[in-house]
Amino acid sequence: MRQIDRRKHALKTTLGEIASAVGGEIVGNRDLVITGINSLNDAGPSEISFFSNRRYQESLGKTCAGALMISHKTPLFKGPQVIVPNAELAYAKVAALLAPPVSRESGISQGAVIHQESVIGKGVTIYPMVFVGHGAEIGDETTLFPGVFVGEDVKIGKKCLIYPNVVIMNGCIIGNDVIIHPGSVIGGDGFGFVRDRAESVKIPQTGIVQIDDQVEIGSNNCIDRAALGKTWIKRGTKTDNLVHIAHNVVIGEDTIIVAQTGISGSCHIGREVVIAGQVGIIDHVEVGDRAMIGPQSGIAKAIPAGEVVSGSPAIPHRLWLKASALTSRLPEFNQRLRQWEKRIEVVERHPLYPSTSSPSEKAAEPRKE
Amino acid sequence: MRQIDRRKHALKTTLGEIASAVGGEIVGNRDLVITGINSLNDAGPSEISFFSNRRYQESLGKTCAGALMISHKTPLFKGPQVIVPNAELAYAKVAALLAPPVSRESGISQGAVIHQESVIGKGVTIYPMVFVGHGAEIGDETTLFPGVFVGEDVKIGKKCLIYPNVVIMNGCIIGNDVIIHPGSVIGGDGFGFVRDRAESVKIPQTGIVQIDDQVEIGSNNCIDRAALGKTWIKRGTKTDNLVHIAHNVVIGEDTIIVAQTGISGSCHIGREVVIAGQVGIIDHVEVGDRAMIGPQSGIAKAIPAGEVVSGSPAIPHRLWLKASALTSRLPEFNQRLRQWEKRIEVVERHPLYPSTSSPSEKAAEPRKE
Amino acid sequence: MRQIDRRKHALKTTLGEIASAVGGEIVGNRDLVITGINSLNDAGPSEISFFSNRRYQESLGKTCAGALMISHKTPLFKGPQVIVPNAELAYAKVAALLAPPVSRESGISQGAVIHQESVIGKGVTIYPMVFVGHGAEIGDETTLFPGVFVGEDVKIGKKCLIYPNVVIMNGCIIGNDVIIHPGSVIGGDGFGFVRDRAESVKIPQTGIVQIDDQVEIGSNNCIDRAALGKTWIKRGTKTDNLVHIAHNVVIGEDTIIVAQTGISGSCHIGREVVIAGQVGIIDHVEVGDRAMIGPQSGIAKAIPAGEVVSGSPAIPHRLWLKASALTSRLPEFNQRLRQWEKRIEVVERHPLYPSTSSPSEKAAEPRKE
Repeated sequence: MRQIDRRKHALKTTLGEIASAVGGEIVGNRDLVITGINSLNDAGPSEISFFSNRRYQESLGKTCAGALMISHKTPLFKGPQVIVPNAELAYAKVAALLAPPVSRESGISQGAVIHQESVIGKGVTIYPMVFVGHGAEIGDETTLFPGVFVGEDVKIGKKCLIYPNVVIMNGCIIGNDVIIHPGSVIGGDGFGFVRDRAESVKIPQTGIVQIDDQVEIGSNNCIDRAALGKTWIKRGTKTDNLVHIAHNVVIGEDTIIVAQTGISGSCHIGREVVIAGQVGIIDHVEVGDRAMIGPQSGIAKAIPAGEVVSGSPAIPHRLWLKASALTSRLPEFNQRLRQWEKRIEVVERHPLYPSTSSPSEKAAEPRKE
Repeated sequence: MRQIDRRKHALKTTLGEIASAVGGEIVGNRDLVITGINSLNDAGPSEISFFSNRRYQESLGKTCAGALMISHKTPLFKGPQVIVPNAELAYAKVAALLAPPVSRESGISQGAVIHQESVIGKGVTIYPMVFVGHGAEIGDETTLFPGVFVGEDVKIGKKCLIYPNVVIMNGCIIGNDVIIHPGSVIGGDGFGFVRDRAESVKIPQTGIVQIDDQVEIGSNNCIDRAALGKTWIKRGTKTDNLVHIAHNVVIGEDTIIVAQTGISGSCHIGREVVIAGQVGIIDHVEVGDRAMIGPQSGIAKAIPAGEVVSGSPAIPHRLWLKASALTSRLPEFNQRLRQWEKRIEVVERHPLYPSTSSPSEKAAEPRKE
Repeated sequence: MRQIDRRKHALKTTLGEIASAVGGEIVGNRDLVITGINSLNDAGPSEISFFSNRRYQESLGKTCAGALMISHKTPLFKGPQVIVPNAELAYAKVAALLAPPVSRESGISQGAVIHQESVIGKGVTIYPMVFVGHGAEIGDETTLFPGVFVGEDVKIGKKCLIYPNVVIMNGCIIGNDVIIHPGSVIGGDGFGFVRDRAESVKIPQTGIVQIDDQVEIGSNNCIDRAALGKTWIKRGTKTDNLVHIAHNVVIGEDTIIVAQTGISGSCHIGREVVIAGQVGIIDHVEVGDRAMIGPQSGIAKAIPAGEVVSGSPAIPHRLWLKASALTSRLPEFNQRLRQWEKRIEVVERHPLYPSTSSPSEKAAEPRKE
């Protein structure tokens, strides 16, 4: 392998160039030289910072940043400002502009094991300790970091970053510009067994996983191959760490799945859905486009498009906010119920009342259940 | 390593042979040639399909499948049918019959690092980038895929499939016909610390993990070695992805553990138990044979044999169904309680009633708690 | 690599030496030879055992152990006893005394790929199939097991154990005496995206992870690099398996994080905190020193120092114990509410009462909500 220039290149730009990259308007010196981007607390005079979260309002007056991106001009910051519609988006774009490219060597290592009947594109980087199986195809400019396993007949597109110790099992298909973080497993067997008396008989998992362009998979994910057909992650979807996606799941475009969520077999998740962390979704459920699911929710039935739900089992989010706040008041409710029972009994036992005894007897029963 | 014939062998069979393999009865042409098995939606005229889930009833009339396995003859499908007691089990068996064997090379790679004081059985496949430590034993016809780590004194039985990047730490024992999916860690240290003032003092984890015959472990599992003695997964148990099994846990035969479940130290789980996804079980708990635990449940005390529980903390499943449905009605309950309080007060304040004031005063208290 | 003596050394000590190591007082023969430590059920006559959990009281009378460590002299055990303030801590110390050192070879394997511009300390062990990148530094007596990836500019301190298939990405800093169990990923990208209409625009994650001295990380953890600055795990903190720690999280000294817990971005966790298994903490939350969080809790707001909380959303633990026990009684509450509604109506409809009708009408409304 050849060592390419991997050190941070000393990148310089001006505020004017930054403003035009993010479509912003400058208030102040457009020729200011900018060498980096940093948080309000940590930025120095040659760095630009950004304000997008009120949580950090008091840092605005104290920051040493040389310039600021913000959605409305602020009197709290004395230096030049770039007024942008979305300061967080501007931050993402400027950080990408200033960040060095992902550091990597170039060329194909002699220490990799690459099957002679595989197809390796132009500008591919393959580190040592990589295994590429029979019939695999690696697209142009893709990088396979050390410890990556590429099974037989796997197809990987162009400009992908497959980080260390990722496993892509036989037959799976990965699109272009896909990033897979370390330790993730693509195409392990789906969890399919049929009980034959006590014994669990394995259902062969003969399908694949297909991951489309611009998908990013977090670290130590498990995305299982389909029993038949394919498990399918569509364009632009992003998963966080330790996510489980079972066999035959289909996930639409631009969906966000936060850490430690599990999606059971044959679920269909729509596009632009947001699934928070530690959510569980049982099998064969449909989640509509742009639905939002709160953290730790348990989804046991279809969620219509655009719905916002929380809780386990999940209910509309606004109802959940009220209901979950009341859970802690159950001991109080219990006490109030007992006291009012006594108060009703006092009323009922009053000599003026005849024969209200029968409902009173009934009231003693429910505890039996 | 020698490259063995790894391409899908063009397998052909007849409906008659399939029927006798699954113990089914044919309605129609027993000489029909079958080349594969597929879902109702995707099967073609030379493929057999199956019907086991009412969810897919409407596909029955539309399928292009050449033949069908079903538990009762249906008029909706016009082609030959194989009547079987359990169509899903028949599917598993026929798929196994028609699936090519797991594709793998044969022989011992020069690119593996195998300690000279280890014992390698007959017909073993060891891929490059595998490490086999001092004193390890690998049984006949077992396959170690790239990136597998086999620690010192590990014993692995016959016909096992140890998938890429699996780690089996020193001294652990794996039975015959065991499958371990990629990235799983067998025999990492149990999480044992004793507080000595603020400091956490490590308790050496000197035990092992023992995994018995026909166990299948999903991807990225963590099964910890015992502090003393062994963590023990018995014959036929299957785990899904991202499962955590702590030190000194014992799991009985033929148990099913769905994805992202965590079982704390020293739990004893019975045989044929079904534990759904994202369940958490605290330490030292006993779960009886054939118990069933619903998704996301939290188990804090023993579950008797055969019980079906759900919820966190878990309660009998039928009670949980009712109770969890009512959680969303807590805001309504709260409102009703307030209104009835007023109604009782109206009654109590009625001039006909003397001295019901004392319970009324009491009723003002509980909010303080 | 040279093979060092890796077999269990036949270690022998006496009860007297054990007592002085743990600061205990001997009742019985101080010259008794001890060759190991084991549980009450499994210990033999040359082994010492310990009693720290009432759960195992009945084993006290039956054990074959040669000696016992216990906090108060017991008549149930006939052999010599070592009286110690904390029997579990004594067990940890004696087990460490008797345990062989972690078995490992010595030297630098020719089968590792180590960049020539890296710095390797004295007494370092590097197994085959390890990758060490440009600019990395490995401290004295640290061991890198097979399959470990050490990225560019990573600094690892002294006497660390980095177990198989651990991935440490570029620029991360690991202290001294750190243990990282197999499959963990340190420094994967944080999960940072900004929505630009439907599209998720990646925020470059240019920070690092810093792990301080004496930290122990379980198997298959994911600890993400900061967006800017660092994700920081301070001295003495221990994590169990499958833990997720997001970008820019700071965790104080001597904190304990049990398996499958997830901590979202920018959380600040104090020192000596105990976080049980499967807990989820949303982003930007502060958890105070010595707080304790029960299993499966969901933390959505700050937890003051020393607080003990449980539940999702979390509430004070004692309140949660009461409230969660009452959840299962919701069906009963519902029934009681309905019955008392009837009883109040009976009272209200009594001919002696005039005009209580208006609250009664109101009472019919809430169900509409």
